[in-house]
Amino acid sequence: MALLTLLTDFGTADSYVAEMKGVVLVHAPEARFVDITHAVSPEDVAGGAYVFERAWRRFPYGTVHLAVVDPGVGTSRRGLVLHAGGHLFVGPDNGLLTSAISEPDCRAWVLPVPDGAAPTFHGRDVFAPAAAALLGGAAPESLGVPVMPDRLTRLDTPVPERVNGGWIGRVLHRDRFGNCITTLRPEHVPPGSMVIAGGRVLGTLRRTFSDVAELELLAYVGSAGYVEIAVNGGSAVEELGYVFDIEVKLPTG
Amino acid sequence: MALLTLLTDFGTADSYVAEMKGVVLVHAPEARFVDITHAVSPEDVAGGAYVFERAWRRFPYGTVHLAVVDPGVGTSRRGLVLHAGGHLFVGPDNGLLTSAISEPDCRAWVLPVPDGAAPTFHGRDVFAPAAAALLGGAAPESLGVPVMPDRLTRLDTPVPERVNGGWIGRVLHRDRFGNCITTLRPEHVPPGSMVIAGGRVLGTLRRTFSDVAELELLAYVGSAGYVEIAVNGGSAVEELGYVFDIEVKLPTG
Amino acid sequence: MALLTLLTDFGTADSYVAEMKGVVLVHAPEARFVDITHAVSPEDVAGGAYVFERAWRRFPYGTVHLAVVDPGVGTSRRGLVLHAGGHLFVGPDNGLLTSAISEPDCRAWVLPVPDGAAPTFHGRDVFAPAAAALLGGAAPESLGVPVMPDRLTRLDTPVPERVNGGWIGRVLHRDRFGNCITTLRPEHVPPGSMVIAGGRVLGTLRRTFSDVAELELLAYVGSAGYVEIAVNGGSAVEELGYVFDIEVKLPTG
Repeated sequence: MALLTLLTDFGTADSYVAEMKGVVLVHAPEARFVDITHAVSPEDVAGGAYVFERAWRRFPYGTVHLAVVDPGVGTSRRGLVLHAGGHLFVGPDNGLLTSAISEPDCRAWVLPVPDGAAPTFHGRDVFAPAAAALLGGAAPESLGVPVMPDRLTRLDTPVPERVNGGWIGRVLHRDRFGNCITTLRPEHVPPGSMVIAGGRVLGTLRRTFSDVAELELLAYVGSAGYVEIAVNGGSAVEELGYVFDIEVKLPTG
Repeated sequence: MALLTLLTDFGTADSYVAEMKGVVLVHAPEARFVDITHAVSPEDVAGGAYVFERAWRRFPYGTVHLAVVDPGVGTSRRGLVLHAGGHLFVGPDNGLLTSAISEPDCRAWVLPVPDGAAPTFHGRDVFAPAAAALLGGAAPESLGVPVMPDRLTRLDTPVPERVNGGWIGRVLHRDRFGNCITTLRPEHVPPGSMVIAGGRVLGTLRRTFSDVAELELLAYVGSAGYVEIAVNGGSAVEELGYVFDIEVKLPTG
Repeated sequence: MALLTLLTDFGTADSYVAEMKGVVLVHAPEARFVDITHAVSPEDVAGGAYVFERAWRRFPYGTVHLAVVDPGVGTSRRGLVLHAGGHLFVGPDNGLLTSAISEPDCRAWVLPVPDGAAPTFHGRDVFAPAAAALLGGAAPESLGVPVMPDRLTRLDTPVPERVNGGWIGRVLHRDRFGNCITTLRPEHVPPGSMVIAGGRVLGTLRRTFSDVAELELLAYVGSAGYVEIAVNGGSAVEELGYVFDIEVKLPTG
């Protein structure tokens, strides 16, 4: 299949992504690329980890995923190959791959740094060749030294906090439409609950945008299974500003 | 061939486009993607329809086109499969697919919404699986219930208006270079005509940018067959601001 | 292999890149695309040439590269096919392809302009069909009239200037991270040298970002082999503004 997804903070104006793809193609001529995104904010490991987790699970088993948001490039932070959930992963050990490391069947290897690798571009000189080797059928255990997944770096996943009469969740991600994806799950918002964001009462969960009037705020279960805040035909980020906490008041009685 | 083009307003910073591609690849492992654009302004159906019409006709017969700009997602607006002009199309029935619906041989089917589809992401849960089925060779009539194309939503195509001594056209689209693509056709601007934009007299049609001096305005027949307004080495949008009406004075006598 | 890279200043919001890809696919159905970038600043031939040079050498021998930053489109500027360094190239003769023309084994041909080609979109109507022909196995000499490479347009490559006690280099490129890539090579900065940028003394060359404290400036040898200026965890462009000259003081004695 030779399918490789890529996620980086390199942007698309520079040559960096193309340099990585060229290196992959030299070693794995049949590689097929799908860009997840290259617009992760520079060095925003947590933001990259969020988008990465949403994307990779949708791909076929056997897909190789190359993820590089790597402020510690060239230091002693480790480079990793992972086999987890039926997928293969290559990237730095800085939390970006938390979702893969957390798979119960995760196995992990530390990649050596080849002589002559540019200390500021392991994406091209360490990770791309490893991804190409996997695409070509190399066994992950042939690429590095085994390491226990519980020794690897994970980001904390924030969970809603129980408060008197309800829950406090957080905004995890703001998307292009100005929708706010939160840490709340539908089970935190049973029928009769009241969602409150930035001092604005949104009422209970709706099904889709047009269940409220044009330009009204709403809360609903988004396509990743989390509660989201949006404006029908508008932007919740513009309407609310950068709120962080989302409150749920549970029904009384 | 298994060629799929994609046009959305999802941007490229979020996981949404990759989620759709992953779903397509699970069902049609040989799919090959060409992104038309994901930078349609959020929910700008008309803007998306313009770019889509220009792009899809350039692709080989048999190409599948997936287009999602879908402010009415999750409502009773229909999802469509079309077979038109030798191409296949999947997307919402909101005018985005006007150019395909307007093909004389268009046949159309309404897609069912599968159980469990996220009400805010039919791109992933309704349209991507349908596109994958087409890529895999499924007959479009096997995917939905037939509907007469004249029952489907079309956007009006604005046409130039005849006025005393000439025509009034409109700016349809402003591109990255600041060029303004208008509704005027070359037949509206016969030799000796005068094109006027934002109170500025541009004279008659030129052949290419450098037919006027550096930083001068010009009118010419653009690569889609419409009259365009540009600045040689600059931006007509910057020079003129957001003008909407473009005037043509026909030669007298 | 049928591998085609693309570099343009067309952006990704308009239909232009997709129109070119559609044309290529009509003539070469097996074409596989890798986008280098479409975010070259409008008509910035030198900026495009920089990114292009960094990218194309990383691809496999036999790759076809289509590069279009073309302010002179529709004039007498020539369209080219090149065979150089084991790669094939298609684009305008305006300096964009300087790095290929400068290969010692470069051979070049001038492309004819087909009847009916849009005078403002040779990317679609001249260069894309030529690229497709190459992808399909056509010999480059079958596509145009031979021309001596020394008759073609080259951009000057700025080189560091020797000054009393050291060197003056220039900033060639500013990347997404705010890193400044300069014309200086490591041999201009021997051990004990002092790099000075915008009046700020950066000391000698470091290995990687974290060799200085968070938010400190540093100079290092970047992944293209040139000296770069960066801020660890920040942006040198934000820290320094748009400096152009970078000074090196050689060790005395």
